[in-house]
Amino acid sequence: MLYLVGLGLGDAKDITVKGLEVVRRCSRVYLEAYTSVLTVGKEALEEFYGRKLILADREEVEQEADNILKDADVSDVAFLVVGDPFGATTHSDLILRATSLGIPYRVIHNASILNAVGCCGLQLYKFGETVSIVFWTDTWRPESFFDKVKKNRQNGMHTLCLLVIRARLTVQRKADAASRMQSEFPAVCVTCTATNRDIKVKEQSLENLIKGRKIYEPPRYMTVNQAAQQLLEVIQNQRARGEEPAVTEETLCVGLARVGAEDQQIAAGTLQQMCSVALGGPLHSLVITGGSLHPLEVEMLSLFPVPEASSGPQSTEEPRT
Amino acid sequence: MLYLVGLGLGDAKDITVKGLEVVRRCSRVYLEAYTSVLTVGKEALEEFYGRKLILADREEVEQEADNILKDADVSDVAFLVVGDPFGATTHSDLILRATSLGIPYRVIHNASILNAVGCCGLQLYKFGETVSIVFWTDTWRPESFFDKVKKNRQNGMHTLCLLVIRARLTVQRKADAASRMQSEFPAVCVTCTATNRDIKVKEQSLENLIKGRKIYEPPRYMTVNQAAQQLLEVIQNQRARGEEPAVTEETLCVGLARVGAEDQQIAAGTLQQMCSVALGGPLHSLVITGGSLHPLEVEMLSLFPVPEASSGPQSTEEPRT
Repeated sequence: MLYLVGLGLGDAKDITVKGLEVVRRCSRVYLEAYTSVLTVGKEALEEFYGRKLILADREEVEQEADNILKDADVSDVAFLVVGDPFGATTHSDLILRATSLGIPYRVIHNASILNAVGCCGLQLYKFGETVSIVFWTDTWRPESFFDKVKKNRQNGMHTLCLLVIRARLTVQRKADAASRMQSEFPAVCVTCTATNRDIKVKEQSLENLIKGRKIYEPPRYMTVNQAAQQLLEVIQNQRARGEEPAVTEETLCVGLARVGAEDQQIAAGTLQQMCSVALGGPLHSLVITGGSLHPLEVEMLSLFPVPEASSGPQSTEEPRT
Repeated sequence: MLYLVGLGLGDAKDITVKGLEVVRRCSRVYLEAYTSVLTVGKEALEEFYGRKLILADREEVEQEADNILKDADVSDVAFLVVGDPFGATTHSDLILRATSLGIPYRVIHNASILNAVGCCGLQLYKFGETVSIVFWTDTWRPESFFDKVKKNRQNGMHTLCLLVIRARLTVQRKADAASRMQSEFPAVCVTCTATNRDIKVKEQSLENLIKGRKIYEPPRYMTVNQAAQQLLEVIQNQRARGEEPAVTEETLCVGLARVGAEDQQIAAGTLQQMCSVALGGPLHSLVITGGSLHPLEVEMLSLFPVPEASSGPQSTEEPRT
């Protein structure tokens, strides 16, 4: 049996009791890489689970699925995923591969940012399409996500913005890599292909990428500040083109950091305020509200004012490991 | 401290390790009523948690919030919710009440149908607004949810339909109760006011409602079959009015039953097929796909064909307790 086990969002104890039992009895346990997006690292998980974990990054999951699935028809193998196993498409790949090999699978669900975002008080059923905001480079500044935000707002829906690095960046950077050897951008995301809460950020420097050296940089996580600043740029670009943007500096947004962790932070304020609110370390998410709010939503958001101490944007921080 | 603890979707062991620790150390533990929507009842939970649970239905949560919160400023009180605590708005009420009393709160997240629905292989970020489908009566047959499905489909988004009884039914039934004493409809939902995964179904017979007797009927849960049949009626009504419906008999849908439980069932097929697919006991959910699918979505859905044995619609079943 292949078990896909969600780990939730906080620390080692956010696994379910059922999930923990599975982890303890499986013959091999894989952990999707970059567990530092939990507030604890691999070692803390191993200590709590009482067993060794095999790190599997996206490349391995895609290229070495058969290794992961080896003997899973006669023994139990677990594959641990931060959040819920259905956040990222890769796990569909793994399930399809298992099924084609005649290996049964089972999913142990857990919280993901897609439902835990409800903790800010906005009603979950009023969320429209989720978007991802990627790090812009000086040559690649996609604004297409903004159309989705616009559509959501036109329909009165909130938009959850996942702040991640995504695969298209890689493609773009690979394409012009040769001509941009001396780029000021130090790192390229080479592994993020999923469109959802894709937290597997494994980066090579441009030089290492070109030379085919698998040397990776520490992951970069986008802050709410950076996302808000990019949004303001899109707004300015739209105005320059004579368009009326669907979101303005005054649009009510919610910044969330480390949802589900002890030191979770939430701040509700204008998009302008999101440019400087201090929310601390990763992971960050941003919600752009859909316009008219339910009175209960308004009341809940009032619990999370932008702290007065927030001054000046924060730098991208490394995750705790 | 007030703890809101999500129980997940399956059985007693779907609580997180952190949640279980909270349950075991709190001075009082409330359980939102109708735990039979888990595959186990209150007694099984009590046995596994090793302690007594106090049942709290929606009425009590709304009217007796102060009882629930009593002494929570000096001791720990837990409030257990099936799924994730932010599925239903009532928990916002409880949080706001706690905050106004100066009682700190903490949320222990878990899976909810809103993210666990990803197990069918449809990509979560491609879901638009969630809708609820209510039991029609012969005088109250709302079609408004269909507009949301239409909007989602126009935007290429899937729609998760939660199959529940909702409060407006009550209002309607209360309004014409006097003239309909001998109604063929045996029960009225009197407590469902939340717009999300509202699984607190507490019903009075019409007679008991009118006489003010708080005697409740066993809850009724809508099946995928019933929801699909109502959808087909809406489609026929629209055609009769000369409109072109956004969903047809051939629209690809996914029926899900008991997501997260051992005996979970999923079937992907046309809306017509959903009228007769046999998925077993509650809870059921229905997804109406958004049109064009990602190849991975298509491949995943192919794992869940409508079983050939499916013949004839199922009756509404009582939950196991």
